[in-house]
Amino acid sequence: MTSGGASTAASTWRAGSPTWLYQLSKAGKLCVPAMNVNDSVTKQKFDNLYCCRESILDGLKRTTDVMFGGKQVVVCGYGEVGKGCCAALKAMGSIVYVTEIDPICALQACMDGFRLVKLNEVIRQVDIVITCTGNKNVVVREYLDRMKNGCIVCNMGHSNTEIDVASLRTPELTWERVRSQVDHVIWPDGKRIVLLAEGRLLNLSCSTVPTFVLSITATTQALALIELYNAPEGRYKQDVYLLPKKMDEYVASLHLPTFDAHLTELSDEQAKYLGLNKNGPFKPNYYR
Amino acid sequence: MTSGGASTAASTWRAGSPTWLYQLSKAGKLCVPAMNVNDSVTKQKFDNLYCCRESILDGLKRTTDVMFGGKQVVVCGYGEVGKGCCAALKAMGSIVYVTEIDPICALQACMDGFRLVKLNEVIRQVDIVITCTGNKNVVVREYLDRMKNGCIVCNMGHSNTEIDVASLRTPELTWERVRSQVDHVIWPDGKRIVLLAEGRLLNLSCSTVPTFVLSITATTQALALIELYNAPEGRYKQDVYLLPKKMDEYVASLHLPTFDAHLTELSDEQAKYLGLNKNGPFKPNYYR
Amino acid sequence: MTSGGASTAASTWRAGSPTWLYQLSKAGKLCVPAMNVNDSVTKQKFDNLYCCRESILDGLKRTTDVMFGGKQVVVCGYGEVGKGCCAALKAMGSIVYVTEIDPICALQACMDGFRLVKLNEVIRQVDIVITCTGNKNVVVREYLDRMKNGCIVCNMGHSNTEIDVASLRTPELTWERVRSQVDHVIWPDGKRIVLLAEGRLLNLSCSTVPTFVLSITATTQALALIELYNAPEGRYKQDVYLLPKKMDEYVASLHLPTFDAHLTELSDEQAKYLGLNKNGPFKPNYYR
Amino acid sequence: MTSGGASTAASTWRAGSPTWLYQLSKAGKLCVPAMNVNDSVTKQKFDNLYCCRESILDGLKRTTDVMFGGKQVVVCGYGEVGKGCCAALKAMGSIVYVTEIDPICALQACMDGFRLVKLNEVIRQVDIVITCTGNKNVVVREYLDRMKNGCIVCNMGHSNTEIDVASLRTPELTWERVRSQVDHVIWPDGKRIVLLAEGRLLNLSCSTVPTFVLSITATTQALALIELYNAPEGRYKQDVYLLPKKMDEYVASLHLPTFDAHLTELSDEQAKYLGLNKNGPFKPNYYR
Repeated sequence: MTSGGASTAASTWRAGSPTWLYQLSKAGKLCVPAMNVNDSVTKQKFDNLYCCRESILDGLKRTTDVMFGGKQVVVCGYGEVGKGCCAALKAMGSIVYVTEIDPICALQACMDGFRLVKLNEVIRQVDIVITCTGNKNVVVREYLDRMKNGCIVCNMGHSNTEIDVASLRTPELTWERVRSQVDHVIWPDGKRIVLLAEGRLLNLSCSTVPTFVLSITATTQALALIELYNAPEGRYKQDVYLLPKKMDEYVASLHLPTFDAHLTELSDEQAKYLGLNKNGPFKPNYYR
Repeated sequence: MTSGGASTAASTWRAGSPTWLYQLSKAGKLCVPAMNVNDSVTKQKFDNLYCCRESILDGLKRTTDVMFGGKQVVVCGYGEVGKGCCAALKAMGSIVYVTEIDPICALQACMDGFRLVKLNEVIRQVDIVITCTGNKNVVVREYLDRMKNGCIVCNMGHSNTEIDVASLRTPELTWERVRSQVDHVIWPDGKRIVLLAEGRLLNLSCSTVPTFVLSITATTQALALIELYNAPEGRYKQDVYLLPKKMDEYVASLHLPTFDAHLTELSDEQAKYLGLNKNGPFKPNYYR
Repeated sequence: MTSGGASTAASTWRAGSPTWLYQLSKAGKLCVPAMNVNDSVTKQKFDNLYCCRESILDGLKRTTDVMFGGKQVVVCGYGEVGKGCCAALKAMGSIVYVTEIDPICALQACMDGFRLVKLNEVIRQVDIVITCTGNKNVVVREYLDRMKNGCIVCNMGHSNTEIDVASLRTPELTWERVRSQVDHVIWPDGKRIVLLAEGRLLNLSCSTVPTFVLSITATTQALALIELYNAPEGRYKQDVYLLPKKMDEYVASLHLPTFDAHLTELSDEQAKYLGLNKNGPFKPNYYR
Repeated sequence: MTSGGASTAASTWRAGSPTWLYQLSKAGKLCVPAMNVNDSVTKQKFDNLYCCRESILDGLKRTTDVMFGGKQVVVCGYGEVGKGCCAALKAMGSIVYVTEIDPICALQACMDGFRLVKLNEVIRQVDIVITCTGNKNVVVREYLDRMKNGCIVCNMGHSNTEIDVASLRTPELTWERVRSQVDHVIWPDGKRIVLLAEGRLLNLSCSTVPTFVLSITATTQALALIELYNAPEGRYKQDVYLLPKKMDEYVASLHLPTFDAHLTELSDEQAKYLGLNKNGPFKPNYYR
């Protein structure tokens, strides 16, 4: 079972997704059944989209006290994490640009009102750079050199590889720790960039994860374990499985009372019309 | 190949989804390979989410000139169509309630800031009722009886079964056609409800579908046909298939230049890190 | 009494404001007391901000069926009308730029998340140009020449002077009426711009004014007339007056029941603490 | 000169407004000219609306780590501070209710999509209570008794009088300090409410004020002092004055370069048409 490594906040599809499990499986080296919990709908939406929508603001405020209104921001990657970051910053009055490699996510960014650019088109003018890609070397020295004085750089994606921090450890640059998790990197001409958490995950290093999100993720993991343990012989082979839709729905239903939310029940006639069991699952497994 | 029947605007998963194709397949009666185009990402997002976000406003304005600010609205169903309707009305200053049967969609409605209710909790107080369920008999006579004077009722979901219009064809109710697509149904005490398009699809009957959306849907359908025609013997059996992710991405990439959107390309090093081909597909098939 | 000329939808401060009344007064030529109803809060907010937030979408849809998502739009003027237009288009997924002459409104545009530009910076790239300035010759031939093919041009501001339509009546340009209120102006190289309502007000020509807004404006005007008629000798001289705050508040209170809105009443202790009468006025006259 | 007492973050009109100065003036006891800086547009918008839009989120996160999505919140008062709080929480997915005494602000709340209620209608169901009124005893013991377990209570308005904290200092209630600025008040049945900053201002006690906002407020104050000092004999009497519009505009123009914002200049012809000086002021003094 995996939910994106050790952390509950792995943030993009690429990052959180158990790529290595699928690779093991493909190579025939997976010796037990595995459940890809990370890609269940509840986990994806809550751990990534909804949680990061809040933690990007929280993480930036606690470290830099920056005012969001009017700031120009570039968000690299428009997966669930990027979508959350962009929505939050747009709502706070920032002007947000997006970079993407995947044309589907790119088109979504357009329709959501963000200019889709290459990083070099805006790197000189932005006040904040946020990576949410699951990729490596997205912000490299070449871009860091061209940022303007005071630009804030942080990583919401995965690991510590998205920003090439190693490239900043050169003799001509001075590092100044201004407070916990905040470094000023100073160029010979006096330009400073503000690097958060040394390029590690902002949401884990400088923000908190709400208990509500932890509860959802933990429930998903627990149910997956129970399913794998209780499943009759032969239901799962040495392969990677998505959490059954019905369990995904069960996780959600357990968390609805928090919001005093009232679910509607299908009538017999309606269930028959839709070809569904009245207790779900309500969607096919591939539905997201 | 199906994209939800004859219409490009079938609106919910349940509605647009070729349930009957899957049923045929399950019963062993499908005699050719079929491509479920409706559930491709670009089709789902554009035809449903993004298009309906605009057409709900357009359809209501053209028929009723209603002001959205301050109005109380209940939206039945929080699939892609419901999400689009809710987002648009919230942005225009309406107070929006949501009903759902699926706990995952229900929890999303909560996190997006909508109160999740049963229809009977709010039916007396709302100004507008919108169905987006793909289901039948969602708004039945019992609810119509309890709506307040002037309440507007319309269907954005599918077909003409979501509102039980037949139940309004009784002797004690008077129908008055006030303009094309707009009927007042008048109760003995003088109460009027405003029924749009006689319960048929508002977005098809009273609004327009942007050419951009038609282009996306048509491209998806054309590519699916080409793929089925050109596929080597044996690639597709007598079953229902989702559009290959790579084609889905190709549809999106063809529409990016409209927005002067600039896609970023993976470096060799990055593609290797992610285990991806530089030209895609960039996501697994189940990704949405 | 004036509410911005004959129209209830005069749209900017400059436009709707009875400049000429103040000029008459200054010149000593005003022979009766006058009430500047246009600048009452309820009139300003409803006729301009809230009404135009909806009518910009309505007017554009009815005339052009344009999809808003992803479109680049420049809005000239960030008064109440401009604020309404920008908010609506941003919510629908457009990328919006703003031009302004007044630094206070300009700073508000920044804080609301819009790039403040000069028209020439973006004129080549935008899909829609909207004027809301109350000024003349804001969009002149020089800009019209540089717009891209298919660009939509319309006026939400005042009168028909904001777009220099006369400059388009030259022999080398061809006009083609494609439907009511919609002209294609065609350049020799085939480029077309889409001119709406020949540069007259879009919201009056191509959209509807909700009865709710008419009710607010009419109530304001009626109360002003009653006040002028009933006022004791000497309360009003031959000058221009703002509607007394208490009447402004009364107009608002008359329209609250529509929304089932419940006002809180001050306790005696609270009224004393604030130095207010329990029945209002609750704000000084200059409060907006 | 006053900007709402000693603090730059006095938050509502009532609170920040120098009521006592106007009272002194009315009583003939004001012995020097005074400038009401608090009600200048830039001060109002930045110190109150734009700053509180961000600090409400920041203050709540730093003290409670609460997740905003899906939470029910009641905001008491819909002045500039209340507008900022409501906009931020709505954007984060909270369901927001508003209470108001002033019908104009109440109608604005309706049009912005918030249900206008009396506090007793929602007090049992909300997760967070925020006061922004400038008034006293808005949240009294009667309401505190009826809040649900875990309800968060805080003050964004003024002083420490909005929440009747004294009423919670009774023997049957236990206070537990859980961290700096956060107290649990525990009822005999175990119910806890979370009181922030002991009812003092959340934005001053538990959040930070961005330097950008301080700069705007300080500039306004400095210009007012210079004006009072330099003004020719007789320009100002022993009364309270609003900051001249031109200075207000000057403050704004000084802060535009931060955003790389480009102001448009009037042509001679346009200035003449509008009856304005090309350098401003661009609006009458009463314009907000």
